[in-house]
Amino acid sequence: MPMQKDLEELVEKYRPLTREGKTAGYIPELEGMNPDSLGITVVTGDGQVYRAGDCLESFTLQSISKVMTLILALMDNGKEAVFDKVGMEPTGDPFNSIYKLEMRQPGKPLNPMINAGALVVSSLIEGSTMDRRIERVLELVRAMADNPDIHVNEKVYRSEKDTGYRNRSLAYFLKEFDIIDDVEETLDLYFRQCSISVKCLDLARMGLCLAQSGQNVSGEQVVPVRLARVVKTFMVTCGMYNASGEFAIKAGIPAKSGVSGGIMASVPHRMGIGVFGPALDEKGNSIAGFSLLADLSRKHHLSIF
Amino acid sequence: MPMQKDLEELVEKYRPLTREGKTAGYIPELEGMNPDSLGITVVTGDGQVYRAGDCLESFTLQSISKVMTLILALMDNGKEAVFDKVGMEPTGDPFNSIYKLEMRQPGKPLNPMINAGALVVSSLIEGSTMDRRIERVLELVRAMADNPDIHVNEKVYRSEKDTGYRNRSLAYFLKEFDIIDDVEETLDLYFRQCSISVKCLDLARMGLCLAQSGQNVSGEQVVPVRLARVVKTFMVTCGMYNASGEFAIKAGIPAKSGVSGGIMASVPHRMGIGVFGPALDEKGNSIAGFSLLADLSRKHHLSIF
Amino acid sequence: MPMQKDLEELVEKYRPLTREGKTAGYIPELEGMNPDSLGITVVTGDGQVYRAGDCLESFTLQSISKVMTLILALMDNGKEAVFDKVGMEPTGDPFNSIYKLEMRQPGKPLNPMINAGALVVSSLIEGSTMDRRIERVLELVRAMADNPDIHVNEKVYRSEKDTGYRNRSLAYFLKEFDIIDDVEETLDLYFRQCSISVKCLDLARMGLCLAQSGQNVSGEQVVPVRLARVVKTFMVTCGMYNASGEFAIKAGIPAKSGVSGGIMASVPHRMGIGVFGPALDEKGNSIAGFSLLADLSRKHHLSIF
Amino acid sequence: MPMQKDLEELVEKYRPLTREGKTAGYIPELEGMNPDSLGITVVTGDGQVYRAGDCLESFTLQSISKVMTLILALMDNGKEAVFDKVGMEPTGDPFNSIYKLEMRQPGKPLNPMINAGALVVSSLIEGSTMDRRIERVLELVRAMADNPDIHVNEKVYRSEKDTGYRNRSLAYFLKEFDIIDDVEETLDLYFRQCSISVKCLDLARMGLCLAQSGQNVSGEQVVPVRLARVVKTFMVTCGMYNASGEFAIKAGIPAKSGVSGGIMASVPHRMGIGVFGPALDEKGNSIAGFSLLADLSRKHHLSIF
Repeated sequence: MPMQKDLEELVEKYRPLTREGKTAGYIPELEGMNPDSLGITVVTGDGQVYRAGDCLESFTLQSISKVMTLILALMDNGKEAVFDKVGMEPTGDPFNSIYKLEMRQPGKPLNPMINAGALVVSSLIEGSTMDRRIERVLELVRAMADNPDIHVNEKVYRSEKDTGYRNRSLAYFLKEFDIIDDVEETLDLYFRQCSISVKCLDLARMGLCLAQSGQNVSGEQVVPVRLARVVKTFMVTCGMYNASGEFAIKAGIPAKSGVSGGIMASVPHRMGIGVFGPALDEKGNSIAGFSLLADLSRKHHLSIF
Repeated sequence: MPMQKDLEELVEKYRPLTREGKTAGYIPELEGMNPDSLGITVVTGDGQVYRAGDCLESFTLQSISKVMTLILALMDNGKEAVFDKVGMEPTGDPFNSIYKLEMRQPGKPLNPMINAGALVVSSLIEGSTMDRRIERVLELVRAMADNPDIHVNEKVYRSEKDTGYRNRSLAYFLKEFDIIDDVEETLDLYFRQCSISVKCLDLARMGLCLAQSGQNVSGEQVVPVRLARVVKTFMVTCGMYNASGEFAIKAGIPAKSGVSGGIMASVPHRMGIGVFGPALDEKGNSIAGFSLLADLSRKHHLSIF
Repeated sequence: MPMQKDLEELVEKYRPLTREGKTAGYIPELEGMNPDSLGITVVTGDGQVYRAGDCLESFTLQSISKVMTLILALMDNGKEAVFDKVGMEPTGDPFNSIYKLEMRQPGKPLNPMINAGALVVSSLIEGSTMDRRIERVLELVRAMADNPDIHVNEKVYRSEKDTGYRNRSLAYFLKEFDIIDDVEETLDLYFRQCSISVKCLDLARMGLCLAQSGQNVSGEQVVPVRLARVVKTFMVTCGMYNASGEFAIKAGIPAKSGVSGGIMASVPHRMGIGVFGPALDEKGNSIAGFSLLADLSRKHHLSIF
Repeated sequence: MPMQKDLEELVEKYRPLTREGKTAGYIPELEGMNPDSLGITVVTGDGQVYRAGDCLESFTLQSISKVMTLILALMDNGKEAVFDKVGMEPTGDPFNSIYKLEMRQPGKPLNPMINAGALVVSSLIEGSTMDRRIERVLELVRAMADNPDIHVNEKVYRSEKDTGYRNRSLAYFLKEFDIIDDVEETLDLYFRQCSISVKCLDLARMGLCLAQSGQNVSGEQVVPVRLARVVKTFMVTCGMYNASGEFAIKAGIPAKSGVSGGIMASVPHRMGIGVFGPALDEKGNSIAGFSLLADLSRKHHLSIF
């Protein structure tokens, strides 16, 4: 099947679905995005690039950044130290849920892809200053995407910092259990990493980097092989919020979504995919992007299962 | 039965129980209190004062202050406005629990005696400045105790402000639902009110004030009659944390405890009681004070039921 | 104020409220009741009887029976044995809630007024046969109401037995923790006690019996004094489902409601009140009965607080 | 690496771990199993069979049967009808948890691998009589294992039927929401399917059947290709109870465990693995089997990630 034609058809097929979703209302800067947007970029292992729809718009990583910070935290601290503080289990709960921190295993987030867990992960990233710490995250993102121009969108960062009440609540809850140290600094890093601005091509290349066991499009090994595997596993079990199980059944591709409407998908050995569609379903995934990827997976047999 | 002799006997009888409890570990300044302390002061409607045990020590109000701020908030805003933001139901959960804010009635604390609810109440107290707001709380406490010397213990206040992570988590959770406005100012007031320093006599007089439908020992009506009734009702249903039901069965006296080990009890038309015993049971009540009051109630028929 | 005229006015004032509620849908036999009905009977300690509205209709006790079975279980086993298996704390949750049995104190219901707790209580009532056990419950009800004609409504009993899935779920959950022994027999007794048929006069007399510390209208001591106190306390903290806190604030009268629309209220030393209004609010209380009692309490100063 | 030698070494290496676990205490018949047992059988796509340890013991499928009943229910009803009644999301909770049925999505179990979900699935299996229904499950198990001698262990079935209080509680809870029809019949089928007796070789062949997209060792297509994929996906996201995420990271093999100590694993296109080790960890997985499989996966690069 011709990929280019398929992508164009799929974008047209699923664009109407955007009307059934809405942009993330709780971050003022995200609320203003054009809800009709839908775009996709595919980069294959042999260097082909396919594009369709609104794939040139810029948007922020949001939760997609949790993949990169997990890689960094594991590099900095090792598996044992990281998974001593955050578990490996999907939760079945919304990404910003707090009750399990009280009711199940007090103070230990179930996995690094929910907000509570991602805050713990961010707190574990080394660096003598905040600038150095966010710079290290940026360096990894740039290396994975092979794009030195990626930066933090300061306006979105300010917006999140000003309104991230739930994340602040989660962080102070964790602080009570001594799981994180400096709450405000952790939040600051977290809001910055969420505000890293990318395009579909960047996501596709990052997905490809993981698909190639850590090698980016220039052939550099920017993520250790074993860590590329670890994060792809989390992307399957917890990458699409509490629709991860459904996405595994319907698409079967390691993927991570963000409330900006981005999805980074990684088809092992074959391709990376970047999707942008800011109208979200009620669980926080790009409503059109979710279905488009499932359909693409069926058509091109992309499932790992 | 002679009250004085009974009190002395009861203090001796229940002092050994203090060994089975411990002082509040999560507020550094409270942890240092002498865990063996146990004292009681009773003030009757006809002006008698009875004392036994370590009743001259100073301690902070902690959760007992929730009664006074509820009175103020109701005076400032009226019942409707207050109970629009905080419910009237006991919860069966620990005082610092957060899960019901997510799982039951998002963002609306079940009652004003749990921490989440008390934070909402504090946010509703009027005053052009923080100094004015805490001054108003102090004025009410002083009026109820008829003691102009009551003040904030700055050391405890600093300690709580520095370490009150769970309360901060609760407050930001509420902020997300727009239930409170200025989080840090609300917390500041809350930590100050908790740090108001009193003695058993003050608690006993405040309890008597409520027992006399709002009249303090000097005969001044410092709390409106209908509000004295409202807070006494909350003291019965939610005053002893998630042991309120048990205390109602065993003692049957409107009472409010604090994690400093204080208990303010109010026997309608008859007496006010102040207890101090900083060794706490696992629910946060003075372990010896709880049993002492239950025994005293049986001996002197103090139950309202 | 003349009680008779007040009752008539209050019934007319609150009858329109019945339209905002609905009859209990989950028990087929209850669903068919006339939702507009509203009636009240008051019996005072000096023998006066006041009636207004539809007070001659028959209805079943439902949860009101939990008061009588608690009395019997306490008589049969003593406080210690009963409260070893069921707690004393209000829950803030719906009456048929199950999650706390898993999440809080596994297998120990928080109080005897929620369904889980009442099942435990019923399992503790002695009797060599089922007939003997339900007969003992009936004997107590008849003695408290001084009415030998009270019996079980077999049609309602059959209906509940056939459809009581949630109660069956609760009972088997408790069985796993060995809290109750014979599940089906316990359920059978529970469904029978719920199906005991009464009129407002019966409820009023039972309420008066408790108000008179266990003496019925004929002056017989049918409930031990100390147990009358215990159950009145539970009626205040947990008698109106998860609106008990609100009812304590607004009415301040020990009372127990049932999903048939009945409410038995007990004003200490003064009167017993029986209300019938089958249109329920969302928490399971008679919607008009709740407000009517609150208003009556304000007018006649019936609050115990 | 020589598989045979590796298996023998791994069994010796992990057998001591059995001492840190214990057999399932809540099913009397399972409690009596020898806790030291540990055995494994591997069957490869090219027909090789490797065995080590106690691989000739018989044990029951327990939760492993959930895979087969899901296949049948999907064949009988189609995806839409099945997933209308049961979700696709892992839960992070114990397999027998009930609270989410009340608190999250009332009455809809999150996935078919937790008990609540499996009960719904069993209720969807067609057959004019109970005998016919369990016979259909047995036929599928026999076909997948290519072993016509597989049967139900009547003693275990009786034991579970007599003591399965939690499952009965779950089933009646679901019944209240009309999710299942005949509770006792559904439970009867469920207890029978759990009691199907197998050996490691059977599990290994069933795992291979799924690994070969539904073809058993005789080359028959006994499971539709698309359903083999669906269940393997569930085995990754929810197959090892609430340690599925951890197992995905550490082993990366689609697998399903049972509280009898069995694990059926399926390495796509390569092999099926049957493990038996009845000493369980606290989440209900074979404690030694879990670690043995993770180690084997690392050594032989079996991870799908």
